[in-house]
Amino acid sequence: MRILVLGGDGYLGWPAALHLSALGHEVAVSDNFARRGYDEEMGVASLVPIATLDERLAAWREVSGNDITAYVGDLCDATFVHEMVGDFRPETVVHFGEQRAAPYSMIDQAHAVYTQTNNVVGTLNVMYAIADLDRDIHLVKLGTMGEYGTPNIDIEEGWLEVEHNGRRDRVLYPKRPGSFYHLSKVHDSHNIEFACRIWGIRATDLNQGVVYGADTPQTKLDPRLATRFDYDGVFGTVLNRMVIQAVLGHPLTVYGNGSQTRGLINLVDTVECIRIAAENPAARGEFRVFNQMTEQMSVRQIAETIAAEYPGEATIEHLENPRLEAENHYYNAKHSALGQLGLKPTLLSMALLDHMFDVVERHNHRVDPAAITPTVDWRATTSVLPHAASALAQT
Amino acid sequence: MRILVLGGDGYLGWPAALHLSALGHEVAVSDNFARRGYDEEMGVASLVPIATLDERLAAWREVSGNDITAYVGDLCDATFVHEMVGDFRPETVVHFGEQRAAPYSMIDQAHAVYTQTNNVVGTLNVMYAIADLDRDIHLVKLGTMGEYGTPNIDIEEGWLEVEHNGRRDRVLYPKRPGSFYHLSKVHDSHNIEFACRIWGIRATDLNQGVVYGADTPQTKLDPRLATRFDYDGVFGTVLNRMVIQAVLGHPLTVYGNGSQTRGLINLVDTVECIRIAAENPAARGEFRVFNQMTEQMSVRQIAETIAAEYPGEATIEHLENPRLEAENHYYNAKHSALGQLGLKPTLLSMALLDHMFDVVERHNHRVDPAAITPTVDWRATTSVLPHAASALAQT
Repeated sequence: MRILVLGGDGYLGWPAALHLSALGHEVAVSDNFARRGYDEEMGVASLVPIATLDERLAAWREVSGNDITAYVGDLCDATFVHEMVGDFRPETVVHFGEQRAAPYSMIDQAHAVYTQTNNVVGTLNVMYAIADLDRDIHLVKLGTMGEYGTPNIDIEEGWLEVEHNGRRDRVLYPKRPGSFYHLSKVHDSHNIEFACRIWGIRATDLNQGVVYGADTPQTKLDPRLATRFDYDGVFGTVLNRMVIQAVLGHPLTVYGNGSQTRGLINLVDTVECIRIAAENPAARGEFRVFNQMTEQMSVRQIAETIAAEYPGEATIEHLENPRLEAENHYYNAKHSALGQLGLKPTLLSMALLDHMFDVVERHNHRVDPAAITPTVDWRATTSVLPHAASALAQT
Repeated sequence: MRILVLGGDGYLGWPAALHLSALGHEVAVSDNFARRGYDEEMGVASLVPIATLDERLAAWREVSGNDITAYVGDLCDATFVHEMVGDFRPETVVHFGEQRAAPYSMIDQAHAVYTQTNNVVGTLNVMYAIADLDRDIHLVKLGTMGEYGTPNIDIEEGWLEVEHNGRRDRVLYPKRPGSFYHLSKVHDSHNIEFACRIWGIRATDLNQGVVYGADTPQTKLDPRLATRFDYDGVFGTVLNRMVIQAVLGHPLTVYGNGSQTRGLINLVDTVECIRIAAENPAARGEFRVFNQMTEQMSVRQIAETIAAEYPGEATIEHLENPRLEAENHYYNAKHSALGQLGLKPTLLSMALLDHMFDVVERHNHRVDPAAITPTVDWRATTSVLPHAASALAQT
């Protein structure tokens, strides 16, 4: 199958591209290197050193004998998107190409506007290219479990059967997102659902849980194939950050009382979910939603698991929550669709944490402890990050 | 009360500003004249000639003795918005300042992206200015009944009580909009609801029905105070367009079988709803939604009413529907909140139609019959309008 991975130079896009290529699919990636740019802006870096895209592609050719095509450009450039889709003629477009950090979107007005414009316009351009060139192309779009918020009812997979005043309907599951980033994904979902109705395109919206993990079988084959590992207060996801804190002998920082519950998924499962979605396309005109997670845990449970599994000493510290999120809330998120299509989950286990501890120990010397602290306050309208004060002053 | 009307040079913004000023409120308007620009782009014009904003403001000063302050600039310019709100220090911001035609948003990729960017970014900038300068400012935001689509359950006012698997929650009413324009309003609503939660601002989201009518007591006082009256296939709303067709002796054009049902509201009631919302602000942190309509009718019923009331001969013609919308659907939209706050509806009646016929007869010579036909096909990804082929070619 011909698969185009947008954002194919990122934390998840790169290992997804390798996984698909290893399985014999014909793969192309696109990227504008925005993610590498955010590192410069924030003054942070991936814990694991990452090679340039050219070096990565050359290494993959050496190791696997497979070619991956690269398109360098911005999804907000409609001409670039149209030409790329016309040139590669994919059967599936996997769309990781968005700004993906909630704290980044909450820095100030400029970052909120950038996040929503970048994500929404990029996706509109991809939809238009598909509608214009080949409505059979399957769009596999990355969303997030964070779109749902923490409703007091069960979280279903994208759609909800409602009975109201004696009548019934099937509606998009009502969302209550917690940042301008999460909102951008809700906007995308609405736009894509409309495109399925109006143009009859096929789409799978993957509401992904918090991803953890440092590598996949492919990224381990050569240091140049490694994917990034973020632990800073802006781009680091909770579990990756806590593993680093354990290794450094710092307390694991839990925001608030830690009762906030999240869906989780291992990096290895993420790339497998992408394969499953691609190889089992949505029907023409179908807007299909999968909750891409394998288990749910509270932030406190995550910290306790890591502290318990870490071979050394590990303590837990509660910080004031810089985010606006409910504590002690109901949370029950359904996630059976990918399992029915064959996903075999890799749960958060000792073996796994062991390996993550290992990766972190190896790159220990690259950790900048100052980068771990949360620096963005959800309630303020201006925030200044310690590493990048001048670039972030609100205009 | 100090009230800032964004988009105060438009069809509804202008008469709303006059209504509020006539009642003794201290009013400012802002506009970037985008709406006048669309006329140039489409090669169409308002049936009723409209004066420049400067002429309008001077005429209002002459007639009423009241001053209205004008801020000329683009809401997508965050600095402009911040400085304007800081300078005028409004207690209420009434936000009409968006691209408001569904067909315009469906012309092609560029118009879809323009509509969503313009509307979403403008509103984000307004929210940030309020959060930054004074969280007590009440944001009164114009949305549309079209955001809801045509669900098979009763349409409530913005929120829905849901029972699911034995648990209950109050959620944003699930929306199923029918164009990239309608989607932009859904995105706005989600963004504003989040701003209420996170910054504790006050907001009223007005989901407005299809507006009809040519004037208000204030716009009638002087020809320079007239508001625009659009009848073209892109910006003309259904009822205004049909009144012109009747006067011209053309068949009233109904898309499809005409069973599509819509909420309606008279221009006179629209400006009164704005006053009611402004004088009865939402609470701090409240995201309040009113369905701003006074009656619901099918498109066929609208055509039949106009044909019956028109003093001359009037026939009805069914055209293939260029939009994607359900026919023969359930429709029951609640709209009691504004009535409870004192709105006395002016329903579609002979007197009213009589007066509209009158306005049209007076400006008969300005009608361009070619402009009435629908020119945008919802299902295509490129459409070329007869009046503006070169400007609209997809890039």
